[in-house]
Amino acid sequence: MIKHALSVTREADFAAWYQNVITEADLAEESGVRGCMVIRPWGYGIWERIQRLLDDRIKATGHENCYFPLFIPLSYFEKEAEHVDGFAKEMAVVTHHRLIADGKGGLVPDPAAKLEEPLVVRPTSETVIGTAFARWVQSWRDLPVLINQWANVVRWEMRTRMFLRTTEFLWQEGHTAHASEAEARAETLKMLEVYRSFAEDVVALPVVAGEKPENERFPGAVATYSIEAMMQDGKALQAGTSHFLGTNFSAAQNIRFQNTEGQLELAQTTSWGMSTRMIGGLIMVHGDDDGLRVPPRVAPWQIVIVPMLRDGPEDEAVLGYCRTLQAELAALSAFGEPVRALLDAKPVKAATKRWGWVKKGAPVIVEVGGRDVAGGNVSVVRRDRLYRDDGKLDSALVARGDFVGGAAALLGEVQASLHADARARLDANIRRDVADFADLEAHFAESEIRPGWLEIQWSKPSGAALDAVVERLKALKLTLRNVPLGAAPAVGACIFTGTPAVERVLVGRAY
Amino acid sequence: MIKHALSVTREADFAAWYQNVITEADLAEESGVRGCMVIRPWGYGIWERIQRLLDDRIKATGHENCYFPLFIPLSYFEKEAEHVDGFAKEMAVVTHHRLIADGKGGLVPDPAAKLEEPLVVRPTSETVIGTAFARWVQSWRDLPVLINQWANVVRWEMRTRMFLRTTEFLWQEGHTAHASEAEARAETLKMLEVYRSFAEDVVALPVVAGEKPENERFPGAVATYSIEAMMQDGKALQAGTSHFLGTNFSAAQNIRFQNTEGQLELAQTTSWGMSTRMIGGLIMVHGDDDGLRVPPRVAPWQIVIVPMLRDGPEDEAVLGYCRTLQAELAALSAFGEPVRALLDAKPVKAATKRWGWVKKGAPVIVEVGGRDVAGGNVSVVRRDRLYRDDGKLDSALVARGDFVGGAAALLGEVQASLHADARARLDANIRRDVADFADLEAHFAESEIRPGWLEIQWSKPSGAALDAVVERLKALKLTLRNVPLGAAPAVGACIFTGTPAVERVLVGRAY
Repeated sequence: MIKHALSVTREADFAAWYQNVITEADLAEESGVRGCMVIRPWGYGIWERIQRLLDDRIKATGHENCYFPLFIPLSYFEKEAEHVDGFAKEMAVVTHHRLIADGKGGLVPDPAAKLEEPLVVRPTSETVIGTAFARWVQSWRDLPVLINQWANVVRWEMRTRMFLRTTEFLWQEGHTAHASEAEARAETLKMLEVYRSFAEDVVALPVVAGEKPENERFPGAVATYSIEAMMQDGKALQAGTSHFLGTNFSAAQNIRFQNTEGQLELAQTTSWGMSTRMIGGLIMVHGDDDGLRVPPRVAPWQIVIVPMLRDGPEDEAVLGYCRTLQAELAALSAFGEPVRALLDAKPVKAATKRWGWVKKGAPVIVEVGGRDVAGGNVSVVRRDRLYRDDGKLDSALVARGDFVGGAAALLGEVQASLHADARARLDANIRRDVADFADLEAHFAESEIRPGWLEIQWSKPSGAALDAVVERLKALKLTLRNVPLGAAPAVGACIFTGTPAVERVLVGRAY
Repeated sequence: MIKHALSVTREADFAAWYQNVITEADLAEESGVRGCMVIRPWGYGIWERIQRLLDDRIKATGHENCYFPLFIPLSYFEKEAEHVDGFAKEMAVVTHHRLIADGKGGLVPDPAAKLEEPLVVRPTSETVIGTAFARWVQSWRDLPVLINQWANVVRWEMRTRMFLRTTEFLWQEGHTAHASEAEARAETLKMLEVYRSFAEDVVALPVVAGEKPENERFPGAVATYSIEAMMQDGKALQAGTSHFLGTNFSAAQNIRFQNTEGQLELAQTTSWGMSTRMIGGLIMVHGDDDGLRVPPRVAPWQIVIVPMLRDGPEDEAVLGYCRTLQAELAALSAFGEPVRALLDAKPVKAATKRWGWVKKGAPVIVEVGGRDVAGGNVSVVRRDRLYRDDGKLDSALVARGDFVGGAAALLGEVQASLHADARARLDANIRRDVADFADLEAHFAESEIRPGWLEIQWSKPSGAALDAVVERLKALKLTLRNVPLGAAPAVGACIFTGTPAVERVLVGRAY
């Protein structure tokens, strides 16, 4: 029996395990402010890597970054009826702009400083960005407008869970305007593909890209697409969305342009976003019973060197050896960037530090003691293969030159192995052979631990017929995830209605 | 007479010129939300460059990035009396978490969703970060804590001006805790030096680093330091501040640690920040009557290639030549990074594009027409030297290979020349020979256009005596800026009191 580093295993209690990883890996903590977390350096470092690499891809596809106000006047929301229905309920509202002493040693909002028009803290920025687009767009020559914003947004969630659903979260939101529907639809799918390949290649998160059914659309969208990742408990996590908004927002916000024939037309708009939720997905896909495992491309430190010091005169030789090693590694390049190697020289016991880095999920941990220095070696632990078959920690003695020479390739291997493991798990947990609603019920009743998803055939009902389907699934705690792009054509009967099926849709439990 | 690209000159109306640059260079615009601006791609691109390069320096000095909540409970402010006095007055207060329909087609805050404790939108984060420090710090081994945050903050300003004073602005705020006063004071000065060298080397902004007098200290600080830049109208702009907070915040927030002798001690804390205000400084230091001039290190595009197209069959050869040129330039390195070269192929007349890039302040503009292609040349305009002595645009015909070979050095020259011009202006506009208050009054009465600053000697009064000095200066619209580090020792009498002077302090008008 291996004694793992965490106090809770995934199998025993997945939800408690998730919180335990967040705490033990120093990712984030409760802030004392309702529903808001403090993102600690290791968690924020992962977010910075995600930001940098996703930003590169957003810019490479021709988008420019801007910044729009945090506050949105109430009246902006009143214009867009359908959008408001979706969002109006839970938003933070600023009503005053000054505090005064209450005469009892405390502070209260100053009644004399009540705003004439309350301001909403942005839950998303379609309304305020659309207003700017209306100013910017006059002619077909001004199109397309391709912009993106990195920002904090606020949604007043009743039940919060760190990274997955927090009152305030960080994200990017892309907003574009186009002259034609075809171009806007192509943009929507292009950004979906950016998200899909980013999730797979960078975060090592296998996902299914597809279109959301009507009931799961973004408020005001004509079509919503998502990437869905499978967590180790078999639940789905929506990890990025891309919306084709048609002229719904441009009509409300008056985004019109003169086309090449001189006529006024409404612009076609899109929006798409990815958030700190991605870190929740990373934890639940790559974490294990020893803590987090961070894919090297997004690891703040890819290789951590832990010197084994004895508070003696030989320590200086060990530290010198480690410094040279750190410099040699930092001079290497992996994934087209300099290798991020840390020498952890904090005044803490080496074993404590090693396990600290295991829990944080540093991809490669290198230990160096006096004997390693004498032999010109290093002891190497791969976080993705922590134990040998006999259950002991798999620490390999390697000649220093060999380790340095192979370090970039090793990081590539760790990245690939995390992705391959997760891909195998996703593939193994989508059943496509369930054609009967009773079998569907049985599948989810029997598979308590990791039920995964079903890809079923349906007749794509809408309106009241869709509502009825949603209700039947809800009773089983299930939701429609998406209609995978490139799924096989439908050939049988709809699992819900028995009428001819028109497409395949994923069903599962979800976060 | 040169006909300049802007409709207002600096000399005619500096304030109107400033707004005109912001509009014509596409930096930012009014958002429709009170006091908040939209930062457009060219303005935000400059901010991204500032962020990236300052972040590198903040990390190189051992700090890690985190993220703390946007909202701060009211009670956190009640703890820190002195800090509240400085900030309490003007803050955005969230009082409700839901909107409902008002029955008349509009929306109102839902009275049933009133928060028990109002939340303040952070004006700065000492209180919420200090609360986290109190959790993190138990022993001397946990110190120092060295963290930084990139965030938006809100201060309800009555009069706003784009980049200089906006309700919401973007900044970084560093927060550190240390075991000893000496270490915290050293940190405060280290970050001041990071700001000073960053402003000079990256933004090409000559500044004076020094300590703020008592009346200009950050609320709750023991000592506040600043860097002050001189605008072209002679006014000062505080472009970065660093605060030694002593134990004022740690006492209020209970940041205590067990020292090496086993006794409980209060930690010594610091904070320091730089904001989007820096862009306002960049405009007012480097702008001219043709628009902005962006120092190459922070220019989103350093070299812009404008093809001169004629809607004819020869266009393809011109575009091909430009694409090759763009690729050759992008393969170069300047300031340790790849050169940022843009090919502007938009369907707009070449002359319009050229003047657009002049107004935006791209450091180098390259025009390519059919004749240039035939001759293997390019026509090069340096934004820092736009006109020849005869008043004509200084466009130099250069062999393409020579231009590419010298492009990195050229960018270095433009960076250096912008800095040198600004440095000469700063040095020429600080007078150190005024020893009499009547002469001070006369100086500022006579020099309406560009009075610059005076470095005067004073007895460093405090309390009521300082208040009296501040009032006398205020009557002349003057403020005390800072006591420059490394200024000559005081030798004469205090200009205000006639008593022996103890140090030299800068006096000037300010933004």
